[in-house]
Amino acid sequence: MNAREVHNSAVVIDGLIIAKWNRELFEDMRRGGLTAANCTVSVWEDFQATVDNIAMVNRLMTENADLVIPVRTTADIAAAKAAGKTGIILGFQNAHAFEDKLGYVEIFKKLGVGIVQMCYNTQNLVGTGCYERDGGLSGFGREVVAEMNRVGVMCDLSHVGAKTSEEVILESKKPVCYSHCLPSGLKEHPRNKSDAELKFIADHGGFVGVTMFAPFLKKGIDSTIDDYAEAIEYVMNLVGEDAIGIGTDFTQGHDQQFFEWLTHDKGYARRLTNFGKIVNPLGIRTVGEFPNLTETLLGRGMPERVVRKVMGENWVRVLRDVWGE
Amino acid sequence: MNAREVHNSAVVIDGLIIAKWNRELFEDMRRGGLTAANCTVSVWEDFQATVDNIAMVNRLMTENADLVIPVRTTADIAAAKAAGKTGIILGFQNAHAFEDKLGYVEIFKKLGVGIVQMCYNTQNLVGTGCYERDGGLSGFGREVVAEMNRVGVMCDLSHVGAKTSEEVILESKKPVCYSHCLPSGLKEHPRNKSDAELKFIADHGGFVGVTMFAPFLKKGIDSTIDDYAEAIEYVMNLVGEDAIGIGTDFTQGHDQQFFEWLTHDKGYARRLTNFGKIVNPLGIRTVGEFPNLTETLLGRGMPERVVRKVMGENWVRVLRDVWGE
Repeated sequence: MNAREVHNSAVVIDGLIIAKWNRELFEDMRRGGLTAANCTVSVWEDFQATVDNIAMVNRLMTENADLVIPVRTTADIAAAKAAGKTGIILGFQNAHAFEDKLGYVEIFKKLGVGIVQMCYNTQNLVGTGCYERDGGLSGFGREVVAEMNRVGVMCDLSHVGAKTSEEVILESKKPVCYSHCLPSGLKEHPRNKSDAELKFIADHGGFVGVTMFAPFLKKGIDSTIDDYAEAIEYVMNLVGEDAIGIGTDFTQGHDQQFFEWLTHDKGYARRLTNFGKIVNPLGIRTVGEFPNLTETLLGRGMPERVVRKVMGENWVRVLRDVWGE
Repeated sequence: MNAREVHNSAVVIDGLIIAKWNRELFEDMRRGGLTAANCTVSVWEDFQATVDNIAMVNRLMTENADLVIPVRTTADIAAAKAAGKTGIILGFQNAHAFEDKLGYVEIFKKLGVGIVQMCYNTQNLVGTGCYERDGGLSGFGREVVAEMNRVGVMCDLSHVGAKTSEEVILESKKPVCYSHCLPSGLKEHPRNKSDAELKFIADHGGFVGVTMFAPFLKKGIDSTIDDYAEAIEYVMNLVGEDAIGIGTDFTQGHDQQFFEWLTHDKGYARRLTNFGKIVNPLGIRTVGEFPNLTETLLGRGMPERVVRKVMGENWVRVLRDVWGE
């Protein structure tokens, strides 16, 4: 079986996409042979604005039902694979949309939200993000974790501070993840995770999706798909071949204004970071180039069996553990 | 001049009342000779629910214009005194109503809000309250303090955690206050402030209103107005005669459901504390008994000049410093 055949037969999951929601994205997902992806519907938005986003995405999925199907269970992921479509998992990058209401966790689960990052870069009611001093998981945050466990929403810690992350890992009764991160062993950055942090989440049954966001890679915007593969291998060496997957952080289709919104607290307050020019690694600049990743990993000597786990099988297993179906 | 004459001629300010909003309260304020009071219009409410509360209070003040007038400036306090009415200062016990919008600080200032407590017992976007582990003032919290300074809203730290309090005191360019607190030197309690904390706020130009909330007093519900006076004297000994005032925390008119709401995070989540039976100290059980406090302080030997400062002149001075008018 050649690399293309492996890719076409594999379950391919992207643990984090925050691209512009439109038909062009869905077409590129099909081009890339993506079985399913965790797609962001909330960052700084409050409850109602997030519901509005979901309503917009629901309409878009209906209009493009030839390309995508909504995912609520891992059976839906299997159905997407069988139908040759891409399954859309709704995800938040911030628990802010829960506002101060524990009951909103279940509301959003019913609306199809399967993965929620606890904090985005800064402090919220749950804990603190990775771009400011981190006082840890709040008392309310512990109640949110318990409710996410109960209704089956996965806790994501990618943009969460070190202390809050550690406490969520210890608090959660279900596996948690860094859906999209890179190792600080390859480059020091507030968003990257240390060897100890990567081992800690894996040792506690958690999961790591490896990203390729250029500002967090050693060679920055000069990186290639081989640098991404190197990071995947580095993380696998720490967490093992069952606790690792992909979480690209594709942002295609967005303009500068969107990145300004992302990089300011609450979308408008103080600036937290400045990415500069964003160019994905050569060879995987768009979602449509996903097959190159399978080829690159195989070409570097990773066994096909392991490549299939990394490309998606592991994600499906851990999502089933959290969602219960 | 006898005690009653001193009281009647004094400017009497209560730095914190969270009683039931109704005509009976306003009548009792007049009975007590209250010149003005900081009355709570938000605890767990979000932006819109707080605006609704203010609309309700505005209507109530209009309907009872024979008893009360709204206070936006210290000139309004003087006008209340001259008219023989009680001035109503609108205050929050939680910055939660600012939500994630720095612009809401000025909106509420324009609606008449003059004092805002940064956190109520637990973590919010600004910092952390005194009933959970306190990670300090957040980055957004620093922006909120700057905006409160700019538009002239006083930062209150009564229910705020020790670390967040210290950082607000250092961050603010205007005087801040514990509007209603008791010294832990007389009774250890998470809500009470240590000698070091009381000195720290005073040394940085801040202000302390002394409360009489029975659960935080040494003798609990068996306390009398003399125990309250003892606490006032204790605090004055630490902060000096210019940085001290009254902040009773009167809750009259409320039912058990209200206290259940107060003592649970967000009004409904985990229980934070349980006050038990609430009985104010004998001699000052209701707002109408305010004249007894002037009499008690004078009777214990406090000079009339100092009693006038404690009963209200100091509050007026510090409010002018913060409000700028």
